[in-house]
Amino acid sequence: MLVLVSYDVSFENPDGKRRLQKIAKICENYGQRVQYSVFECVVDPAQWAQLRHRLLDAYDEEVDSLRFYFLGKNWQRRVEQHGAGEAYDPETDVLIL
Amino acid sequence: MLVLVSYDVSFENPDGKRRLQKIAKICENYGQRVQYSVFECVVDPAQWAQLRHRLLDAYDEEVDSLRFYFLGKNWQRRVEQHGAGEAYDPETDVLIL
Repeated sequence: MLVLVSYDVSFENPDGKRRLQKIAKICENYGQRVQYSVFECVVDPAQWAQLRHRLLDAYDEEVDSLRFYFLGKNWQRRVEQHGAGEAYDPETDVLIL
Repeated sequence: MLVLVSYDVSFENPDGKRRLQKIAKICENYGQRVQYSVFECVVDPAQWAQLRHRLLDAYDEEVDSLRFYFLGKNWQRRVEQHGAGEAYDPETDVLIL
């Protein structure tokens, strides 16, 4: 299934930059970065449970925002992409940014 | 239906800031900003056609990225939100950022 992970990390406190890097690094292990703070992750339920746990552990619930969107197995018909970085398939391709 | 709109606007050329503001302004007319460059838009097919047209007209296909994710009518079960800005319903609530 495809899970879209998007995040906003606050730089209000000095730890923000570290959290941003950590969250991006976690996502990189499970999916493809498609925009600066958006990852598309093709995961099975066990991988998703692990990814979710790691992200919730890394963010600051007081100031950061984490959003997960479940696009399911037939996610291709739910995604439309335009411009830079378009035309790749997260199940088969690697996106060079 | 809920359409998630996410964008990356490049600041490579001096027009980037203007495009970013324009794209955000277009999205504000159709949905709720949930993160810095992510909007959730509850739209009917006619509104979606209009929104899509305006966005594709405003972005620079060479350097910007626009992504649309179609969450359908039963989108509530496809969204999970954590942290800042959580617990609002784009069909009924206004989010104060």
